[in-house]
Amino acid sequence: MFPVVVVHGGSDMVPKERSENSKLGVCSAARAGYAILRAGGSSMDAVVEAVSQLENNPYFNAGCGSVLNIRGEVEMDAIVMDGKTLGSGAVSAVRNIANPIQLARLVMDKTSHVCLTAKGANQFARSMGVAEVPPESLITEYARMRWTKNLAPGTDTGESQMGKMGTVGAVAVDSEGNVACATSTGGLVNKMEGRVGDTSCIGSGGYADNQVGAVSTTGHGEAIMKVTLARLILFHMEQGQSVEAASDLGLAYMESRVGGLGGVVTVDPQGHWAARFSSSQMAWAAAQKDTLHYGLLTGEEFTQSIDDRL
Amino acid sequence: MFPVVVVHGGSDMVPKERSENSKLGVCSAARAGYAILRAGGSSMDAVVEAVSQLENNPYFNAGCGSVLNIRGEVEMDAIVMDGKTLGSGAVSAVRNIANPIQLARLVMDKTSHVCLTAKGANQFARSMGVAEVPPESLITEYARMRWTKNLAPGTDTGESQMGKMGTVGAVAVDSEGNVACATSTGGLVNKMEGRVGDTSCIGSGGYADNQVGAVSTTGHGEAIMKVTLARLILFHMEQGQSVEAASDLGLAYMESRVGGLGGVVTVDPQGHWAARFSSSQMAWAAAQKDTLHYGLLTGEEFTQSIDDRL
Repeated sequence: MFPVVVVHGGSDMVPKERSENSKLGVCSAARAGYAILRAGGSSMDAVVEAVSQLENNPYFNAGCGSVLNIRGEVEMDAIVMDGKTLGSGAVSAVRNIANPIQLARLVMDKTSHVCLTAKGANQFARSMGVAEVPPESLITEYARMRWTKNLAPGTDTGESQMGKMGTVGAVAVDSEGNVACATSTGGLVNKMEGRVGDTSCIGSGGYADNQVGAVSTTGHGEAIMKVTLARLILFHMEQGQSVEAASDLGLAYMESRVGGLGGVVTVDPQGHWAARFSSSQMAWAAAQKDTLHYGLLTGEEFTQSIDDRL
Repeated sequence: MFPVVVVHGGSDMVPKERSENSKLGVCSAARAGYAILRAGGSSMDAVVEAVSQLENNPYFNAGCGSVLNIRGEVEMDAIVMDGKTLGSGAVSAVRNIANPIQLARLVMDKTSHVCLTAKGANQFARSMGVAEVPPESLITEYARMRWTKNLAPGTDTGESQMGKMGTVGAVAVDSEGNVACATSTGGLVNKMEGRVGDTSCIGSGGYADNQVGAVSTTGHGEAIMKVTLARLILFHMEQGQSVEAASDLGLAYMESRVGGLGGVVTVDPQGHWAARFSSSQMAWAAAQKDTLHYGLLTGEEFTQSIDDRL
């Protein structure tokens, strides 16, 4: 078994001028996660590090760069899950936190609960000594532009995918065969205040079980929830499907049953991995056996040595 | 196919002096749901009515009678799901609302979202004209007594189940074969502020799919989430298990894998139903073919005509 980390940067439609940065971002996050695995670190450490990097990268809808809710504010959701214990930690509608994924991990590690929401999540952050950041520090010019544009009457035209499916996530298997997942998001462009999507919902935004594998999802959150996409894919794997076939079956079912598009990254405990999507694009990268694989459009896969720079 | 509604009042350990009222409460809620089905109403109307009655009943941990969080406040979670569309609505950590289940239904019916949390959920309630009630109106003497008792140092002794597993819920099938579920709770005694449990989490607190059936769960919320109990039971049914066997398989898996106890009510679209629990008791009642079935302890089942009073 070879340790592997697979990351995604959301299945949102990325404008052409931003696509190069999306690819660079997922590759860099996969490298960071892989460095941890190569040094003998845990899959949980690897996915949290990879997702933290994507949260810190303003080109992704998570942490800094999150989309804005209807009031022009950032409210974020995140989840981690540990396949060894089925332990999970999540936060929803949290504000002023640079790395919600790290806060989600603290919920798992330091409380008897699985999920903390809104100001309760922020209170917990303070009690753990997690610094709160000024709200503006999470808001990019691009996010504000999209928010303003969406406020204008009669919008929501051709860009039906844009701003609906941004989420970042990662799955990994470490040298001990432990699997983990992590998913983080700013949610939906111009969402209602307090809207919680699939990301922080166990079984929808992600799921990890050492007996089966791990999945992190992205896409239209409400559709993902209706079919509990991550858990559904793992059920297919329990019935003998490969990571790739199970991912495709889950995504196809979601599209046919509730009309939603999305994408997933999936691993099994043997180190097989897949990055699959029904949307027109998903930035993704995987690192295994010192090789980096990555792509953005359907069918696209580039390969290079992990130590080369793009 | 005969329409049926099955309700539960939580798998919490109920002190003897309160058990009679628990039985009366679930029977009354099942009767109310059944009256709707008998008149040709939908399964969604039936489960929302049954759960509303339990929320209004101070003997149950939902609505009025909810347990208190660590600060002595009521924060409630609720979910509904419609098996015809897989549409769902949920609220989490909502305050000052008499019937969170009705607010959850409004989220499903009136927004494009699935879940609203905390003050976002309250803002939505106001925008819908849902009256907010004074916080004290939801707090019973009993809830306050338990909160105070749990604040005392060195507690959490023999009553390990008590206050951890209270939730109310219902599932139903109507004359058109549509299934629905509804679940509502005040959560965990002395929980952290902002703690969100299984109830509002689709696939954990409940799930409904016309192609398979519907489940509403109760029990140790964090354990239920780790195994996405409602969805798990429906996967067993998809593989040919009966409502009863699938419910038992799900509960046994939860106990063996993560050490949690709980209970469920389950229906399939043909009108088969089950009320099963791994905890020592669960108040439950089912109404079908003008007959009321109910019980509290393992193996207990009383039967009477729907029109007789207890």
